[in-house]
Amino acid sequence: MTSLPTFDEMQAAHERIAPYVHRTPVLTSRFIDEVMGASLFFKCENFQKAGAFKARGATNAVFGLSEEQARRGVATHSSGNHGACLSYAAGRRGVPCTVVMPRTAPQAKKDAVQGYGGRVVECEPSTSSREAVFAEVVAETGAEFVHPYNDPRVIAGQGTCARELIEQVDGLDAVIAPIGGGGMVSGTCLTLSHLAPEIAIYAGEPEQADDAARSLKAGRIIADDAPHTVADGLKVPLKDLTWSFVSRHVTDILTVSEDEIVEAMKLMWKRMKVVVEPSSAVPLAALLKNRAAFAGKRVGVIVTGGNVDIDALPWTAPRA
Amino acid sequence: MTSLPTFDEMQAAHERIAPYVHRTPVLTSRFIDEVMGASLFFKCENFQKAGAFKARGATNAVFGLSEEQARRGVATHSSGNHGACLSYAAGRRGVPCTVVMPRTAPQAKKDAVQGYGGRVVECEPSTSSREAVFAEVVAETGAEFVHPYNDPRVIAGQGTCARELIEQVDGLDAVIAPIGGGGMVSGTCLTLSHLAPEIAIYAGEPEQADDAARSLKAGRIIADDAPHTVADGLKVPLKDLTWSFVSRHVTDILTVSEDEIVEAMKLMWKRMKVVVEPSSAVPLAALLKNRAAFAGKRVGVIVTGGNVDIDALPWTAPRA
Repeated sequence: MTSLPTFDEMQAAHERIAPYVHRTPVLTSRFIDEVMGASLFFKCENFQKAGAFKARGATNAVFGLSEEQARRGVATHSSGNHGACLSYAAGRRGVPCTVVMPRTAPQAKKDAVQGYGGRVVECEPSTSSREAVFAEVVAETGAEFVHPYNDPRVIAGQGTCARELIEQVDGLDAVIAPIGGGGMVSGTCLTLSHLAPEIAIYAGEPEQADDAARSLKAGRIIADDAPHTVADGLKVPLKDLTWSFVSRHVTDILTVSEDEIVEAMKLMWKRMKVVVEPSSAVPLAALLKNRAAFAGKRVGVIVTGGNVDIDALPWTAPRA
Repeated sequence: MTSLPTFDEMQAAHERIAPYVHRTPVLTSRFIDEVMGASLFFKCENFQKAGAFKARGATNAVFGLSEEQARRGVATHSSGNHGACLSYAAGRRGVPCTVVMPRTAPQAKKDAVQGYGGRVVECEPSTSSREAVFAEVVAETGAEFVHPYNDPRVIAGQGTCARELIEQVDGLDAVIAPIGGGGMVSGTCLTLSHLAPEIAIYAGEPEQADDAARSLKAGRIIADDAPHTVADGLKVPLKDLTWSFVSRHVTDILTVSEDEIVEAMKLMWKRMKVVVEPSSAVPLAALLKNRAAFAGKRVGVIVTGGNVDIDALPWTAPRA
């Protein structure tokens, strides 16, 4: 196991990435608060650079490289926000970035990486092909691998979001974020366990990809093979670093159905006027489903991203 | 003509409404800036209470009433954001609000008024019926009429938006807002002509409802009968008070096609992750069409509202 990121590394990340990422606003909705019987504070990382919180971790990794490492560039495999965010960060530093993606990934995802100046290398849609192609890329370029979440630099970067949130909102009782691989939840644990250990940390997860919830109950990492959910950012499993944070600091992982996710997403679009991707609606769906447990509380909700195809929304297009 | 609002009335409005409205955030997009070759600062009134800047003027009108007036309540005719915003403001003060709307208005618009506690009274979809029904409502209730835009209290309230914007962003060269009846543009003129007369004021307008642009050229108010545009908040004509501000302080009114409006709206959804109504995309459409004139400038863009039916978006539903 690589070593866990420290609190000081999160603080260093905060300084390092400040010129390249947004201090995102916190929005509230009186309507949603009335429905909930609680006060929710939405930390809007959908407004983050490249449309997702992953710009924080990726920027920390890229700007923490030595000059020599930086010349060789960075590489990752991701068909989601991490690929685009790593490309964004590399572009800001002016270093090469290669993202390995299945040739079947949506063109929009490839365009996002290329739009920020990164290179897309296609693989077959299988783990073996991805690993083989990725190994070739690294052998050829000497690029530094930046994992989407199981990387101490990435977790430290994601932790800067909770640091901002508690500066922006006083007296929080709880914070909730969606959980996939656990990068954002781990960063939140890293920060809050030091700065505000009285704040309870929850995660929201799709029932159809509930491996983290089952892991927490079982006391060990359970990984599923290719779950299907509209919350496409949350399909990946926990890994050793993120499990370490989640298992020690998370109070509970609350699961929600596909319909509950889409309803919460529509509620956010309609009442808060924010474009959020399905994964970002999972925490609100979880809170609405567990209203009694949060009655009267002040809850921070991490809205993780806004990268969704507005021509094929879950309520207008057929569900996958 | 009722008297024009004064700068001091705008300042008083700012104090009066502060507890009931949001100080909305200003968002930027590096992508849009690169496309424009300029720096745009989007003042996001789509995040305002009731989803539109009109909460400012309505709140100023309602909270400026004497106790006796307030007991009799407020009334208006509006099938758009003003009706919902007046209902919101009346609800916050706990006074009655009646909104006269055509029986053919979308149910969502009636629900919005009622959701904030206001009463909807239906009329036939004609000017004569609207006027007759509205006169009955006022005779019966003694309610104070709050016009959607040609009202000094409303214009003073809308002026608070530009006051915030210039506190939030330094060194603006220009500000642009959409123009329908001219309430927001007039409030912007009121504020900037006193606090920052060096900032040029522009308006954006749909080609298919270009009465304000033609008025400015002609030097007198031209009103069209029932124009059709996707920007449904911008169909109404200028009136004496708003014409007074627009004719004296607006540098130019830039018109855009329906397709340009929808493309700019999609661009804002995709790159800025904001839910905005078509009217709110008119200024960006106008800037993109007149890129050369704004090259290198710092431009404030007033994003007026976010009340759009997400089940029937202009790019998924047939155009009206």
